[in-house]
Amino acid sequence: MNVIIDICIVPMGVGISVSKYVTQAQRIFEKHNLSHSMHAYGTNVEGPWDTVMAAVKECHQTIHDMGAPRINTTIKLGTRIDRPQSMQDKIDSVTEKLQNQ
Amino acid sequence: MNVIIDICIVPMGVGISVSKYVTQAQRIFEKHNLSHSMHAYGTNVEGPWDTVMAAVKECHQTIHDMGAPRINTTIKLGTRIDRPQSMQDKIDSVTEKLQNQ
Amino acid sequence: MNVIIDICIVPMGVGISVSKYVTQAQRIFEKHNLSHSMHAYGTNVEGPWDTVMAAVKECHQTIHDMGAPRINTTIKLGTRIDRPQSMQDKIDSVTEKLQNQ
Amino acid sequence: MNVIIDICIVPMGVGISVSKYVTQAQRIFEKHNLSHSMHAYGTNVEGPWDTVMAAVKECHQTIHDMGAPRINTTIKLGTRIDRPQSMQDKIDSVTEKLQNQ
Repeated sequence: MNVIIDICIVPMGVGISVSKYVTQAQRIFEKHNLSHSMHAYGTNVEGPWDTVMAAVKECHQTIHDMGAPRINTTIKLGTRIDRPQSMQDKIDSVTEKLQNQ
Repeated sequence: MNVIIDICIVPMGVGISVSKYVTQAQRIFEKHNLSHSMHAYGTNVEGPWDTVMAAVKECHQTIHDMGAPRINTTIKLGTRIDRPQSMQDKIDSVTEKLQNQ
Repeated sequence: MNVIIDICIVPMGVGISVSKYVTQAQRIFEKHNLSHSMHAYGTNVEGPWDTVMAAVKECHQTIHDMGAPRINTTIKLGTRIDRPQSMQDKIDSVTEKLQNQ
Repeated sequence: MNVIIDICIVPMGVGISVSKYVTQAQRIFEKHNLSHSMHAYGTNVEGPWDTVMAAVKECHQTIHDMGAPRINTTIKLGTRIDRPQSMQDKIDSVTEKLQNQ
């Protein structure tokens, strides 16, 4: 089962700048060879369910190891079995409609 | 690593009433012996990371098997390593403050 | 247009205990006479769109005034026009199904 | 008060393809002159609180008018008062760290 997620990791108790933790998460998705794309409020990640979830767990473990005592993460998570659909497919289907009207 | 999540599962392509799918998810959390509590917009679930995540995956698989072609789930996910904290602890700390002032 | 939301407010840059800010949010929902119910990972709030959103804005303003430099909030937000549905209706429809099988 | 949101609108009861509704939301953000950027699992929108929230309300009203009986939206919403920060600033701060190590 493939999954597309959008993940936003917020370490707490480490001040207001959290970019070094977000950077680390990018490296973890990279390490797991997961297709991923960062935006201003999270990161889209795509791949087999178990691989994606293992990477998410590693993000939490690593960010705790970096010193964050508490982490609050928000994940949107989509699966579909009617047909394959990549992150790019989702964007294309809206972009086409925007251009056609 | 223990985790407290809040999960809201929205099957798509099955009409507007989704309570039978939500009911099934409750049974899955029950089956996994996870402490869980439903509210009007999701379910709080508490337990070891791997058990909770295995239950979430089983929810998706089961709801697809029930006929939903597409599922859109939202998860908030909290871990902390400074001290143990249960779902009830979180509610109590706010309730006390509400009563004391 | 009525709305049911689930809101989780996370002040950043104020340490790891955020219960005093969550307590303040409860008082704001109370002040606006909005039906609301706290759970371990957020608060359900129900009412007219504009009143609910005015309360959400007041939460952010008040929590900034209390000293939080940054706030990260997650909101799930449901509207429906086919029929009225309260927070309790949503819970009841699942509870009934759980008992009937 | 400026806000950066990430919004994901899921119409229910209209089948599994929802791109025409997402397209309409893009047009509404455009019409309100809000800086916005779509990704595979939502749209980042940036601007004054009241303008952004008026656009979100208009999305719900318009998508109901298009025939969706029920809508389930997820919003992440960030405000900060310590310093101005745009959507691009957030991305840049991570991108720089990724390149420097």
